[in-house]
Amino acid sequence: MPMNSIATAAQLTHEQKLDRLAEVAIRVGLGLAPGQELMMTAPLDALPLVRRITEHAYRAGSPLVTTFLTDDESTLLRYRYASGDSFDRAAGWFYDGIAAAFKSGAARLAVTGANPSLLSKEDPEKVSRASRAVSRAYRPALEFITRHEINWTIVASATPAWAAEMFPGDEPGAALAKLWDAIFAASRVEAEDPVAAWKTHDGNLHARAAMLNEKRYSALRYRGPGTDLTLGLADDHLWMGGGTTAGNGLYCIPNMPTEEVFSTPHKDRVDGTVTSTKPLSHQGTMIENISVRFEKGRIVEAHATKGLEVFEKLIATDEGARRLGEVALVPHSSPIAHSGLLFLNTLFDENAASHIALGQAYSSCVKNGDKLSPEELAARGANDSLIHVDWMIGSDKIDIDGVTASGTAEPLMRKGEWV
Amino acid sequence: MPMNSIATAAQLTHEQKLDRLAEVAIRVGLGLAPGQELMMTAPLDALPLVRRITEHAYRAGSPLVTTFLTDDESTLLRYRYASGDSFDRAAGWFYDGIAAAFKSGAARLAVTGANPSLLSKEDPEKVSRASRAVSRAYRPALEFITRHEINWTIVASATPAWAAEMFPGDEPGAALAKLWDAIFAASRVEAEDPVAAWKTHDGNLHARAAMLNEKRYSALRYRGPGTDLTLGLADDHLWMGGGTTAGNGLYCIPNMPTEEVFSTPHKDRVDGTVTSTKPLSHQGTMIENISVRFEKGRIVEAHATKGLEVFEKLIATDEGARRLGEVALVPHSSPIAHSGLLFLNTLFDENAASHIALGQAYSSCVKNGDKLSPEELAARGANDSLIHVDWMIGSDKIDIDGVTASGTAEPLMRKGEWV
Ligand SMILES: [Zn+2]
Ligand SMILES: [Zn+2]
Ligand SMILES: [Zn+2]
Ligand SMILES: [Zn+2]
Repeated sequence: MPMNSIATAAQLTHEQKLDRLAEVAIRVGLGLAPGQELMMTAPLDALPLVRRITEHAYRAGSPLVTTFLTDDESTLLRYRYASGDSFDRAAGWFYDGIAAAFKSGAARLAVTGANPSLLSKEDPEKVSRASRAVSRAYRPALEFITRHEINWTIVASATPAWAAEMFPGDEPGAALAKLWDAIFAASRVEAEDPVAAWKTHDGNLHARAAMLNEKRYSALRYRGPGTDLTLGLADDHLWMGGGTTAGNGLYCIPNMPTEEVFSTPHKDRVDGTVTSTKPLSHQGTMIENISVRFEKGRIVEAHATKGLEVFEKLIATDEGARRLGEVALVPHSSPIAHSGLLFLNTLFDENAASHIALGQAYSSCVKNGDKLSPEELAARGANDSLIHVDWMIGSDKIDIDGVTASGTAEPLMRKGEWV
Repeated sequence: MPMNSIATAAQLTHEQKLDRLAEVAIRVGLGLAPGQELMMTAPLDALPLVRRITEHAYRAGSPLVTTFLTDDESTLLRYRYASGDSFDRAAGWFYDGIAAAFKSGAARLAVTGANPSLLSKEDPEKVSRASRAVSRAYRPALEFITRHEINWTIVASATPAWAAEMFPGDEPGAALAKLWDAIFAASRVEAEDPVAAWKTHDGNLHARAAMLNEKRYSALRYRGPGTDLTLGLADDHLWMGGGTTAGNGLYCIPNMPTEEVFSTPHKDRVDGTVTSTKPLSHQGTMIENISVRFEKGRIVEAHATKGLEVFEKLIATDEGARRLGEVALVPHSSPIAHSGLLFLNTLFDENAASHIALGQAYSSCVKNGDKLSPEELAARGANDSLIHVDWMIGSDKIDIDGVTASGTAEPLMRKGEWV
């Protein structure tokens, strides 16, 4: 990179970076079309970013931006004062309205940044009932998202509560500044031309997925400290990464940042041992140094130096919970890995290292997957479960090979980097 | 009032007064029923009151409070950056959701407090198009309110922008504190028992309306400086005031504060001259010292020392715009009149003095009015217009008589007070 552009990036003010984040969110992440309404959700503390996004949406030709701001304090008041039977209720009329918005052509932008441990001290049973009620009410709207019928994206805003969780030793102001720095770096807003940088990055992810799809490996082989794993890939598996064209014809990159290319493992063809390289934060509990042994796709032995009980409860959810539903490759040089931070937010932590997920597979990572029956998906090796929990198994000490149908191993990653 | 209670009220902290305002809003204003969902709207700056209201709603047994916070800055960004044809759009899907909430039994609370001159510098044509688009989209939901099918109420929160408009000479903190003082006083939260004080006040308004309904005056006679007016009342007119039982069976007081008893004038039977006692703020313009002469219900002559042009445009809107649609009696000793403030907010200014409104009449102020056709309403003297603009004609220098069918004048108010 020439000295000029380094100087430019270093001279950007916070406001300028915020504005650039808003611009890439609208132009690259969402791909908002002129004339398209926007529905946005955000935590109250994300208001400065929300306003910049609103401006860029109008400048991109949106006729109307409707934003729903959530107040953590009001959420907690319900747990403090509402009667027990309150928690099976959700505002169905509101979520039906959202579905109607999507149906009428609105785009969807979510600003993430909520306090990761907001509900950690509340009654877990109330939390899970409230979450289930919202899931049920939200389902018709969510289908527009999961089926990619509309353009949508998620971007992050630093908030004081999130920053305090990540940097408990820092003063509030310093913690917030550190989190913003990490978000700006991960979101490529300090590049000379952030929009161009995102397009290049998206092109790279697509090229990587295309290369892997051409290879049609039958398995991946992982080797490193505490890891010796052969991970079979589902028949007809597809590698995906970066942006996608939604059903409404608009191209969007649904996660900002995104660093992964990902696919579907074969639920019955995973063998060997794998060790986590970062702690897994699950429902407020930290699970550390997970080490599991697979036989024919199934976890038959599990260890952890902390939080083992929670992990064991997790994999006992259902039969699919002890099998894999996702495999994702992320180079150790990704900006998020580079930060060395644990964000306690999936949007970031999932993009910090190569990972696997226990539980539900993505049908979109199987050829014609959206048209296959559950039985047909299962026959190809796609896993089925109520859970989908990602955890990190990549680092700068891990080598990964692709194994061809004939059994030949080809180097894919060495010391965490693409060869 | 005994010294004790004065001491108690004086010792209340701001937080305690805020909590009392929230409590009367939920218990007296809204009459929220246990098990009833609540839908609330509020300006962002009203968040402290919103949280207290949320707490009291849950404590009153609401299973779920859903709040929509509006951000003035985001509203302005639309005027600054959206394309011209944007302004005919409204989020119909959102307002349909609100209608569905009301249909499914939710109560409605609006916190007022927005910047009264937020849009005063924007293109009036865009403002009116945006407002019309929202009115159209909101109509199905609004019908639940205008027909009183559900319990609803409006309460006020001080906000920095509103306070700055009211007290332009004060520092922001001092202005905000003054506005809060005025709101707390007008909302009766400094009484020893605010809930009891509201119930007494509501009883007084009902008693006053019942007395006037029993009298069945054919006209009111106003005399004072610049005023000598005979205002005929509509046939079958009804006086109303205070709370009402909604279609869902719940008793609510839709405005907090409320000081008026009001009815329907006869559109063809108003004669004489009347002079305004407070400035009228209309679409950002101040109209001062209005003086009009009526003949057979119609304004035939109009003067004003300021803003006459705007006033003349207003009464030229349609034929009904130069006739009366409402008459309201408010004693000069009402807490709002007492403050001597112009709030630039109808919720307050309408309750500061006896007033009249040009334009549309309330069908609910005519016996069986909701079942009568427009022709039947007109036959009784109820006015019809696109506008409804209230202006103040009461003060401590105005005497009002009730005139019976036989022509006898009975003193109703002397020097602005009920006799
Ligand atoms: Zn992933
Ligand atoms: Zn995942
Ligand atoms: Zn009135
Ligand atoms: Zn009125």
